[in-house]
Amino acid sequence: MVKRAVCIISGGMDSALSAMIAKTEGYEIIAVHFNYGQRTEQKELDSFRKIAKYLKVIESYEIDLDFFKQIGASALTDSSIEVPTGGIEAGVPITYVPFRNGIFISIATAIAEKHQAQSLFIGVVEEDSSGYPDCRDAYINSMETSINLGTKDETKLKIKMPLVHMKKEQIVQKSLELKVPLEDTWSCYKEESQACGVCDSCRLRLKGFKNAGVVDSISYV
Amino acid sequence: MVKRAVCIISGGMDSALSAMIAKTEGYEIIAVHFNYGQRTEQKELDSFRKIAKYLKVIESYEIDLDFFKQIGASALTDSSIEVPTGGIEAGVPITYVPFRNGIFISIATAIAEKHQAQSLFIGVVEEDSSGYPDCRDAYINSMETSINLGTKDETKLKIKMPLVHMKKEQIVQKSLELKVPLEDTWSCYKEESQACGVCDSCRLRLKGFKNAGVVDSISYV
Repeated sequence: MVKRAVCIISGGMDSALSAMIAKTEGYEIIAVHFNYGQRTEQKELDSFRKIAKYLKVIESYEIDLDFFKQIGASALTDSSIEVPTGGIEAGVPITYVPFRNGIFISIATAIAEKHQAQSLFIGVVEEDSSGYPDCRDAYINSMETSINLGTKDETKLKIKMPLVHMKKEQIVQKSLELKVPLEDTWSCYKEESQACGVCDSCRLRLKGFKNAGVVDSISYV
Repeated sequence: MVKRAVCIISGGMDSALSAMIAKTEGYEIIAVHFNYGQRTEQKELDSFRKIAKYLKVIESYEIDLDFFKQIGASALTDSSIEVPTGGIEAGVPITYVPFRNGIFISIATAIAEKHQAQSLFIGVVEEDSSGYPDCRDAYINSMETSINLGTKDETKLKIKMPLVHMKKEQIVQKSLELKVPLEDTWSCYKEESQACGVCDSCRLRLKGFKNAGVVDSISYV
């Protein structure tokens, strides 16, 4: 029987690896990407398209979510709030977009139910991350239970998060091993031409490459 | 201390009563409405605005969700699938929109987190309903747990569903008692000028009024 997985693919390196792991496990991939008014929306969309093509996905959803700007309350979706560049601090940073992954997972669930997919892959990382509450293992596991209570009885969806307990260098290493096109991924929160190198997301990416002893081939300011 | 509640208000009778109950419990109301490409989108939006005005809400969000049409798979969001009019049948009907309430609750959660609301009110009805899986008590309770794991530690959100175990006639009676403007609510799945009277939603509404011994003042075909 054909196995089908909905993979949430942001254009960053974590979700690209997560989708590649689904592919190596033999799933047909339904790719889902969200444009949510984030600063680097166009660049992430370009990266998503390259990754989806590379993975030979059977279906691709590009979902526009304009309302995130209406809600705001995050440096990623409200241009009047600056993206911090001084280094990763303790606590939930201002780049946290309220319950973003909850919204993404819920929409991906609707798509999974439509296509009778067995699994939903998401590239969340818990410890070695910005500290977003909706990237926690405990949350995603609870959400899986909720989803199976809130959808049709015949819908049985497993949420897989293969990177959740990985360090960033392990993500780089595993990506190289599985031939994830890292040069086509984009992580920077701020810029779309050259990565800034100093936002939390760039810092985490660069740390991963450094600790893995590998050079990142994307262009930095 | 001021209590704040996010109330999901569709324009129908159940969510109007649910929001009115929040009001009588002393909450300041943040109203949220979703335009999701459903057949009676404009009529429901008109009803929402009247209800929100009547309730003197402190904030109002009208959220456009165009992607529901992209996903389709429901008679409400895909115009090529007919709305059944032959009577309520067992099982999940074709008017079920995959994980719609899951998506609505997730977005409402983001709004609640932004405004530091303590409660989220939703007008789901379990037994005396169309049989949608995302209207079940067990689902909503589980979702509450998930939400509190997936948001900031200081965000403590209670999901309230005061109608979940009510019969439709109790909803009509309670609405009259609390002076909910039922004449401004809209339930029909199919029509926007006069209600069809034969879709599942009209049938449930009419049954409620009949069993309550009250005449429904909206206009039917």
